[in-house]
Amino acid sequence: MTYCCGLRLKEGLVFISDTRTNAGVDQISVFRKLYIFGKPQERFIAIQTSGNLATTQTVIGHLRNQIELQENINLYTVNSMFEVAQLVGKTLRKVIADVTEDTLEQSNYYCSLLVGGQIGQGEIQLYNIYPQGNFICATPDTPYFQIGESKYGKPILDRALTYDTPLDEALRCGLISFDSTLRSNVSVGLPLDFAIYRKNSLTVPKAKRITQNDEYFQIISSQWSAMLRESLNKIPKPSEVYLT
Amino acid sequence: MTYCCGLRLKEGLVFISDTRTNAGVDQISVFRKLYIFGKPQERFIAIQTSGNLATTQTVIGHLRNQIELQENINLYTVNSMFEVAQLVGKTLRKVIADVTEDTLEQSNYYCSLLVGGQIGQGEIQLYNIYPQGNFICATPDTPYFQIGESKYGKPILDRALTYDTPLDEALRCGLISFDSTLRSNVSVGLPLDFAIYRKNSLTVPKAKRITQNDEYFQIISSQWSAMLRESLNKIPKPSEVYLT
Repeated sequence: MTYCCGLRLKEGLVFISDTRTNAGVDQISVFRKLYIFGKPQERFIAIQTSGNLATTQTVIGHLRNQIELQENINLYTVNSMFEVAQLVGKTLRKVIADVTEDTLEQSNYYCSLLVGGQIGQGEIQLYNIYPQGNFICATPDTPYFQIGESKYGKPILDRALTYDTPLDEALRCGLISFDSTLRSNVSVGLPLDFAIYRKNSLTVPKAKRITQNDEYFQIISSQWSAMLRESLNKIPKPSEVYLT
Repeated sequence: MTYCCGLRLKEGLVFISDTRTNAGVDQISVFRKLYIFGKPQERFIAIQTSGNLATTQTVIGHLRNQIELQENINLYTVNSMFEVAQLVGKTLRKVIADVTEDTLEQSNYYCSLLVGGQIGQGEIQLYNIYPQGNFICATPDTPYFQIGESKYGKPILDRALTYDTPLDEALRCGLISFDSTLRSNVSVGLPLDFAIYRKNSLTVPKAKRITQNDEYFQIISSQWSAMLRESLNKIPKPSEVYLT
């Protein structure tokens, strides 16, 4: 499985992805699921992938190929993030259709994608793209999307993250969401990749990698566990009425 | 959907269930999913249900009917918790088979059950019973089972619950697991039913109900949210290295 989380906040965008893939429990590998595209001063695009690995890699392959072959419509020629979402959605839909015409079987090849970024003076955007090629867009009311094993890490995002959360606090909150997921589900695993984009910077930040030895993640992971247990102990115990 | 959680601890058993059922999003109802059977001084049996409501209610109906008709084998005649699990499993399997012979279609009628309790001098036990009628048993290594929407509430159990946790702390931890689930998934809803059985007491505690107005649950819910945000703020923010 996979866990990817994309945040579209007032100050900018945060993307965090794990890297574990598995075909059964005896074939576990590390694959990147966060891809960065862009040209400084012009555009920044990040894509996160979840689902069938052959499908996601082929989608990324096509998107890169379109750029290399200088096709009319590619990630570097489209004019807006909306057009980026359309291009990625169309590409994804085609990749799945290429594998099988049997619509019932198609779900075996499904994947979901998060696509975020900024082009020129346009707004920053974050899209959740479905296997059918259609998509929804993050808003201040719903400032984050998750794909893959999303449930373990959702409660902390629901409680602590808002559109106005600063980027550094959002990264911290997102990493705790990952820590919760890593602890409860072995199909999500380190290392993590993340990227942070500050609104209107039009830089192309490289994805950074958090490995087992990352000092900050170790702090988060150990402190958070200790604090949860401490907080739990501070909550009054149920009275006798509840226990008899 | 549903969320039920059963704990088999050193001191005894804890069962917590929500009560929300839904057929689509426009048909939401309240149904009990925690059933208590027993005879004081002799046996205590609790059953939690998740999945197709017609199936689970029919299973409970059969189990009650077996008792009323004084059939040779019923919940009040079997000699051990293992035999209880076998009886419930066999009953469940038969209920599903009665609805359809098409094994592919059967999964539409699936449900999962947790069954725990104690008979006479036997050990306390907790079983997770699958739609096929087979089952697994909780142990000190794995002292809890969840059925239904289990993922949101799993991280706190994984971090804070062990076999040695006292019953009052276990109830507190379990209710926080429910609070996390309630916040992040509308298909799980109040009121909650819970029951606590102290090992070797051979009492038959009634299930208690936690409604929206329950004072203790309100305390848990509001304090826990505040403490999570407070704890989050105590964790150092990522350094500039992470943000650029």
